[in-house]
Amino acid sequence: MPRALILVGSEFEDIEALYPYYRLLEAGFETLFASEDTGELKGKHGYIVNIHLKFDDVDPSDFDVLVLPGGRGPERIRNNKKAVDVVTHFMERNKPVAAICHGPQLLISAKKINGRRLTSYWGIKDDVEIAGGIWVDEPVVVDGNLVTSRYPGDIHLWMREFFKLLNRRGLLSAVPKE
Amino acid sequence: MPRALILVGSEFEDIEALYPYYRLLEAGFETLFASEDTGELKGKHGYIVNIHLKFDDVDPSDFDVLVLPGGRGPERIRNNKKAVDVVTHFMERNKPVAAICHGPQLLISAKKINGRRLTSYWGIKDDVEIAGGIWVDEPVVVDGNLVTSRYPGDIHLWMREFFKLLNRRGLLSAVPKE
Repeated sequence: MPRALILVGSEFEDIEALYPYYRLLEAGFETLFASEDTGELKGKHGYIVNIHLKFDDVDPSDFDVLVLPGGRGPERIRNNKKAVDVVTHFMERNKPVAAICHGPQLLISAKKINGRRLTSYWGIKDDVEIAGGIWVDEPVVVDGNLVTSRYPGDIHLWMREFFKLLNRRGLLSAVPKE
Repeated sequence: MPRALILVGSEFEDIEALYPYYRLLEAGFETLFASEDTGELKGKHGYIVNIHLKFDDVDPSDFDVLVLPGGRGPERIRNNKKAVDVVTHFMERNKPVAAICHGPQLLISAKKINGRRLTSYWGIKDDVEIAGGIWVDEPVVVDGNLVTSRYPGDIHLWMREFFKLLNRRGLLSAVPKE
């Protein structure tokens, strides 16, 4: 069974965390949330997720795909070295990463967007560009292992392209079909 | 392009409306929200959806699939005859219906669950049974055209089974593949 990891901090954008979570579960992925501590964590809209793993206990080589939701979470966890190390692992090994909204703040902190095409929430466009990224105002941008979107209204296109990438990488064999 | 309709009332359970909405869009469905009025409608957790159609303006024969999310919405719209007529149309014509949580209150009002196997939020189990339904405490129950679940934690299984049904009905041909 393929395994997915979602990095969240408090006041994450609920739908940007919950949609990929349920979508990956629906497709047969074992899907875990990681944050600074285990236990309950609340999103901007009050949804509570159960954190399965502390960043300190994450071995990123155990996971096939990484999701970086937005909201206020990314700013709150980007100073955590272990969280950033997870992002670095996925980017250096060319493993699938989906980021949306403020999620790319973690890509900036990992110093992994120089020369890469991506999008993000409009408010952090300048940070993306100063960090060397090629920022594009499109609902979804695919650049190799990296699939990025701007805000919740892009979610269906974000996950459609991400699942095409997972299919190209042979990660959808566990999908229940009928 | 296949077409999906989602019936919502105020204080709908956000994720139960938004997950199917984005999931159906992801799969290439034209997907519309209907409620008593057009304009903005707020969920229990504060997410705002744009209502594309008033119940009065819905022609259910224009749509291939119906979704009934939960939260407080179903109680607020079940006295609307046009909303209930839409449910009746789908059930009488054996067209795919996905209902979750309090969504089955609309199936009860349409008097279409007698002898049918289904589940719902635990709090309305008695109503389902008194209306003639065979209530089952399982994460997802498939009975012909009807796919039901209990609460947000079942969403991935609810939509996995619903999409299997849509596939059996030949409605996934519009799905972008790669």
